[in-house]
Parts: sequence; C-alpha cells; structure tokens
Amino acid sequence: MEAERIRQQIQFIREIDELKHVLRQSYLMNGSRRENDAEHTWHIAVMALLLQEHAADQTLDVKKVVHLLLIHDLVEIDTGDTFAYDTKGYEDKWERELAAAKRIFGLLPADQREAWMALWIEFEEGQTAEARYAAAIDRLHPVLHNFYTEGKAWKAHHVSVAAVKKRMAVIAEAAPALGRFVDELLEEAVAKGYLLP
Amino acid sequence: MEAERIRQQIQFIREIDELKHVLRQSYLMNGSRRENDAEHTWHIAVMALLLQEHAADQTLDVKKVVHLLLIHDLVEIDTGDTFAYDTKGYEDKWERELAAAKRIFGLLPADQREAWMALWIEFEEGQTAEARYAAAIDRLHPVLHNFYTEGKAWKAHHVSVAAVKKRMAVIAEAAPALGRFVDELLEEAVAKGYLLP
Repeated sequence: MEAERIRQQIQFIREIDELKHVLRQSYLMNGSRRENDAEHTWHIAVMALLLQEHAADQTLDVKKVVHLLLIHDLVEIDTGDTFAYDTKGYEDKWERELAAAKRIFGLLPADQREAWMALWIEFEEGQTAEARYAAAIDRLHPVLHNFYTEGKAWKAHHVSVAAVKKRMAVIAEAAPALGRFVDELLEEAVAKGYLLP
Repeated sequence: MEAERIRQQIQFIREIDELKHVLRQSYLMNGSRRENDAEHTWHIAVMALLLQEHAADQTLDVKKVVHLLLIHDLVEIDTGDTFAYDTKGYEDKWERELAAAKRIFGLLPADQREAWMALWIEFEEGQTAEARYAAAIDRLHPVLHNFYTEGKAWKAHHVSVAAVKKRMAVIAEAAPALGRFVDELLEEAVAKGYLLP
C-alpha cells in the first residue's frame, strides 16, 4: 500500500516536470529569454510570502495561498499558456483546463486527487480571500517583468494601459497598497512608452 | 513609509529573478537541458506539500518548510551552484554563502531581513524538524532527475552509489518511507548502469 502510494506520488512529480517547458509571454527581467511557468510559479510563491502584510484580509491562510499558487498553472502542461490579452484563447479556456486538471491531478492517490483538484478550482473561482490574494500576486508578477524589460511583451502584443488596468482590479481589491503601487508603475510605463496610452 | 517599504520589497523581487539563470548539474527529466535553481525550487516546494504524510515528525509546520525551501538557494545568485559531490567547492561554501545571504536579504525591510535570514540559517543548520524534512526533499529531487535521465549528471561526474547514499541519510531520518523508496531506486539505478556500484 505505502509503496504503491509513493509510486503514484512520484509519478505525479515526474509528470509536472513538464511545467518547465511551458513558455509564457513574459521575458526574464534581464530580457534574455521568455520565462517558463515553473520559474513564474516559484517567483509568485515567494512574493505571496513577502507581500502578505499588504493583503486586505489579514486572517487569510498564507499556506493555502502558496499551495494554490504552486499548482495553479499545472493545467498549462496540456493547454499551454493563454496570453492574458488573447480574447479568442479565453473562449474555451475553462473546458480545456478542466480536462487537463482531471488528467494531471488524476495521477495522485484518491484523497490527494480530490483535495488538490478542489484547490485548483478554488483558485479558478476566485471567491475566497486566499484565492483573491493569490490572483492578485499572479497578476502583479508579469507587470513587473514587463516594466523592467521596458514593456517587451506589452509592445509585442500592442497592449494598452486600459487593458492592463482591467486585469489589475483584483490587486486593488485584495491588496490595496499594492494596487496603488501598480497604478503608479503603469503611469510611469505609459510615460516611458512601454505601454500604449 | 508604506511606499518606501513596497519599493524595497519590489527591489528584492527584481533581484531574485537572477535565480532563473543559476544552472544546476541536474537535467530536466526529458534530458533536454540543465535545470535552473528557480525551477528546482518550485518543484521541491510542491514535493514538500505532496509528501508531507511521510515526514517522521507529523507536527511539523509545513508552511515553514515551504518558506525554507523557496529561499534556500537564493545565495547561489552570488555563489553559483556547488555540485553535491564537489568536495573542493564545499571547503569555503559557508563563508561564500553567508556573504551572499547578507547581501540579498539585506535588500529587504529590516524586520523581514532578520526573519528571512534566520530562516535561511535554520535550513543550513538543519537542526529543526522543518529544516530536516526540507533537506530530505531537497536531496530527493536530484535523485529523481538523475534516475529519469538514466543517470545523466551522475555519469558526467562519475558518481558512485556510496557517495549518493551518504547524502541520502537525511531522507531515511526525516521521512523513513521515502528513505526506503530511494534505497530501491538507487539499487535499480546501479543495476541499470546509471550509477557506479
């Protein structure tokens, strides 16, 4: 029993190595190459711990936030990254990602399959304080990458400040001080020509 | 005050992007390229959550374990990765890494600088249940990468099973069932010629 359970868990660990091959639109902060999902996920897990003091809800369970973040992009092993400003790609995003979640979390022992699937759905639904703060951090991250690469991915996709601001609303809600920080950063980005006005 | 604090935190987030450029000896599980520290760190954070049930100490604080893991390799931004079986590189490892920790955590606001530095030292000292379980996961990870790439990094460095077993002792201590799993995996690795007998 124990050996079989560990075998399943190790199979999952092996499978998710694929996340290191899923490329995002964002560039590393030195601009040298595009970031992959595993790198992004490590970075936002650190950010969630570092910036917790700015969360609107100071009673939230930060361990759960980190768990949500660490697994939220695993579905992209099957679906690939859908660029945040790609409206077409968003049409069937939920169905494609749900199928991927079932396959990937399906590798786990039954109890963990259910628990981790529930966490993935919690993040997607964005209804709990943990899911909202996690989403805020997930959205803040590519803004930093874009800003420090002088808008490399924004420029490539002709993104406007209005489109970015719409996606950033969750930050102002879940972490007001970070929302104010992002507003200023976006203003500077427009002034410097990194982002369309 | 608040804005200055966020500015320092964002500066830290920007600095640690460099971890994505620190290459390890291990290859990705499909053998295509070497893994970097950010990818490794994401993977072991997931593993720590997934394998917690196997920890000898079931009262440990897994949130702390994840925090220890997420930041334990940041010093390698300055020092680079020291290969586990490089005895020469280990001679002045502590001094080099301590200087790096002071510089990198020194970017943080004072309270976080102290707290995160203390966590980094806790991992290095390996005296708490959290640090021991974290170390066990950190050591298990490259074994999996080596096994699934048919010993790619082991072969490149002529590593013997005795040397690997010595480093794996912490796994048997901190998570006995995982220790048994690793013993079997190493036996198979030798039988298949991935690792020197």
